Amino acid sequence: MLPLRGHALSARATKLYSTWRPTANAPLRAVHKRNITTQQLDAERQDRERIIVLGSGWAGYTLARDLDPKKYQVVVISPRSYFVFTPLLAGASVGTQEFRTTLEPVRTRRSKNHFFQGWADAVDLEGQSLTIEEAVEDPWQGRSLTFDRHAHESEAQRAHEKQVEAKKGQLFDLKWDKLVIAVGCYNQTFNTKGVRENAFFLKDVGDARRIRNRVLECFETAALPTTSDAMRKHLLNFAVVGGGPTGIEWSAELHDLIQEDMKRIYPDLVQHAQITVYDVAPNVLSMFDERLSQYAMAQFNRQGISIKTSHHIEDLRVGAPEATKQHGDVGDSASCYTIKITEEGEIGIGMCVWSTGLMMNPFVSNALAGKVKRHDKTGGIVTNERLQVKKDDDSALQHVYALEDCAVIEDTSYPATAQVASQKAGWLGTRFNKGDIEQQKFTYKNLGVMAYLGNRNAILQSDGDDISGRVAWFIWRSAYLAKSVSWRNRILIPTYWFVNWLFGRDVSRF
Amino acid sequence: MLPLRGHALSARATKLYSTWRPTANAPLRAVHKRNITTQQLDAERQDRERIIVLGSGWAGYTLARDLDPKKYQVVVISPRSYFVFTPLLAGASVGTQEFRTTLEPVRTRRSKNHFFQGWADAVDLEGQSLTIEEAVEDPWQGRSLTFDRHAHESEAQRAHEKQVEAKKGQLFDLKWDKLVIAVGCYNQTFNTKGVRENAFFLKDVGDARRIRNRVLECFETAALPTTSDAMRKHLLNFAVVGGGPTGIEWSAELHDLIQEDMKRIYPDLVQHAQITVYDVAPNVLSMFDERLSQYAMAQFNRQGISIKTSHHIEDLRVGAPEATKQHGDVGDSASCYTIKITEEGEIGIGMCVWSTGLMMNPFVSNALAGKVKRHDKTGGIVTNERLQVKKDDDSALQHVYALEDCAVIEDTSYPATAQVASQKAGWLGTRFNKGDIEQQKFTYKNLGVMAYLGNRNAILQSDGDDISGRVAWFIWRSAYLAKSVSWRNRILIPTYWFVNWLFGRDVSRF
Repeated sequence: MLPLRGHALSARATKLYSTWRPTANAPLRAVHKRNITTQQLDAERQDRERIIVLGSGWAGYTLARDLDPKKYQVVVISPRSYFVFTPLLAGASVGTQEFRTTLEPVRTRRSKNHFFQGWADAVDLEGQSLTIEEAVEDPWQGRSLTFDRHAHESEAQRAHEKQVEAKKGQLFDLKWDKLVIAVGCYNQTFNTKGVRENAFFLKDVGDARRIRNRVLECFETAALPTTSDAMRKHLLNFAVVGGGPTGIEWSAELHDLIQEDMKRIYPDLVQHAQITVYDVAPNVLSMFDERLSQYAMAQFNRQGISIKTSHHIEDLRVGAPEATKQHGDVGDSASCYTIKITEEGEIGIGMCVWSTGLMMNPFVSNALAGKVKRHDKTGGIVTNERLQVKKDDDSALQHVYALEDCAVIEDTSYPATAQVASQKAGWLGTRFNKGDIEQQKFTYKNLGVMAYLGNRNAILQSDGDDISGRVAWFIWRSAYLAKSVSWRNRILIPTYWFVNWLFGRDVSRF
Repeated sequence: MLPLRGHALSARATKLYSTWRPTANAPLRAVHKRNITTQQLDAERQDRERIIVLGSGWAGYTLARDLDPKKYQVVVISPRSYFVFTPLLAGASVGTQEFRTTLEPVRTRRSKNHFFQGWADAVDLEGQSLTIEEAVEDPWQGRSLTFDRHAHESEAQRAHEKQVEAKKGQLFDLKWDKLVIAVGCYNQTFNTKGVRENAFFLKDVGDARRIRNRVLECFETAALPTTSDAMRKHLLNFAVVGGGPTGIEWSAELHDLIQEDMKRIYPDLVQHAQITVYDVAPNVLSMFDERLSQYAMAQFNRQGISIKTSHHIEDLRVGAPEATKQHGDVGDSASCYTIKITEEGEIGIGMCVWSTGLMMNPFVSNALAGKVKRHDKTGGIVTNERLQVKKDDDSALQHVYALEDCAVIEDTSYPATAQVASQKAGWLGTRFNKGDIEQQKFTYKNLGVMAYLGNRNAILQSDGDDISGRVAWFIWRSAYLAKSVSWRNRILIPTYWFVNWLFGRDVSRF
């Protein structure tokens, strides 16, 4: 069998996650390679301070873009070569947008920043140095993670692996004057059985592509002559776990895809289609006022999307439910999944989109463990109001900053949202450029929350104002179009809204 | 290790290519499943003839679109859910176009045709019946093939596998009144060592994506601090095998990417970049006049793309050349490839794009073997001037037609091009709709050949007229824009030309 993903190298890349070759365990630095570009970096740096920005998410991307290259040498370290404009991801996952319109590359023609595609592996806070693991050939390119990539390795194994990587030049050190930790979080699965292996997540553009291909695959398999009606019902039964904005907006986008396109492309099949949102909590969209979340429920109800609160997922596996296997003629059972729900038992589904919150980034829970103060609940990095990382003795590290979902300002409870992350980044960038951070403190201004509900309806809540329906949808689109970073995407995004409205979404699968 | 490609099902799908579970070998039909939709099909068909169109390439897609649904029940069978507008594929593989603008889905809102995503597996010409193997979960989705998917299996193994598939409903039969064989060809590798495993091909949209990601990966790996100059030279050394339009146009597009974008995004690296086109023949673009191919050579020469004719490839493997390993500090050797050329020995490269012609589709060489007359040289299906398939006794099958690259009209030497395929399809569609095929004969009208040479230059040869340079480039773009099938793409294609001209190509990799 030839390698499926990309080229032969990926086979090598996957080793990073699986192999373990035993040898002696020598000190790491010793084997590090001559670090060519770091010398270039040092030369190019002149008398500027070097700021290392970890991550290319809302905080990292915004900050790196805002920093003054005359004042600072900016080095961005991220396993992704792009920033994802997350609000459009749900739309991209069903074809309302093209995947690439949700992205901004870290490298641009104009940017003077440096970028190395890699994972932050280890950090020496006193020595102001970072060990970086190359991620150019990362087999998980473009997909969000649910687990520590090195979790399956013992300390000895990992130590040895690092030597091998260092020898190969896959591991290298970088010094900083200021370090900004803006790494994102992973998907929280609560270790629910089978979820990590079989669920679909929606935090990165690769996730969106997997979802889009699978949705179309479900319809195409259901359209095969040999597919029984029993199996068709399973394949076109879409389960969404998590009643937050992501889960709700994805259900809404899927509903639009089915009503606006699939209904006309697979007229015989849509009768079998069903969308169900499950949540353990007693209500969904808890960040909205009662009135708006009630409106959302009613809206979904009208659209035939069922919301099942206080439901608990036990297991997600490949294959049809036992009951169906015994009765009906299911043909190839492996074409669908089965989700087990405490309140309902086994249910056959085409796919499960899982969005139940955040798991702390292993870099924080491992590499920074014991070195910084951690938040009791989230396990995030505790910072002061200047976003400076606190140590256990409550003293703040003057040159280490943390923002994004991995950081919490002490004694605050700002939500882990793009809005908070980008506000922090904007604030920190200004401080760095003005050099007045000691006189300032960050405060968060809540600009409101929005959610798309499908069928050109949305809800919008902004200090006191509650708006719902068509108007909210219009504001929703305008706001995100205005917020979208590059002029390139400001042209492409409405173009896709237009052509998809005119001709329908593309259903080619590749 | 979690499955890398898409969801867990793909693991199951790959089995189709690898496993062999021994059991008894019962007759196939016997185990076929109750064929639900075929009954629906038969009902929906009324008094119309059923035409099965095999393939969704230039011929299959054009024909299926043109056929009159009042006269015929059209059933398209193809392993791809879309048609690829091949002239834009080279551009898409470097980001001049978005992948999706090269595609037209087989299923559309308006089309009344039926579509089943599958491979034609076996055919009963007398019984007018076809056995189809489901391809919805094909792990090679979107990628062109270089080998028979079942080549590794013995006849007994394959026979057994078919039973298992039939039981699972992955195999089913379909009857026809007219059969149109319009399957495409595979990539020809001449069994050159390592090519199938390590080369990049360019016949399908998935190939274009692999190439785009790999080109960007080469630059990103070269940009790592620990990458030595020796390895940088390898990574940014791009080898193209085959001096036909595909190879030449891809080199031209890559040259544009490097000169227009990479030069500004990776200013320190472009010095290492090199493109070389290899061909066994003494000259390239042989379908053009001497003058135009000379112009092309001169153009490439000016652009620093070297063309090496009368060169022979022996081997393509992962890893750096031995020489480099001994001398230089290559770091992770597995990051690059080594190509062995008879005339030059081992050369380190970042990637090899392979385009050396066509291999006959296994469906023709196996499933149709002994049943139809085959062309001596190409092994293609021999047809008469009505595109009716000939048997070995030179009689023509009245209801079986063949076009696309797999078919040759007896005593003609039309090239295996999109132009011939689509002209044949247009002609056959008209005949079927008018029902006058017995009074007509197909003749090919050569509308000319074009090739893009990079830097806004092209060559164009149309009955007598030779045009080269900027004007030819303008005609090149206008012609393909006019030819592009849907209004959706007629809007999107120039939009991408515009935004990429304005802002540069996107370099996000996912």
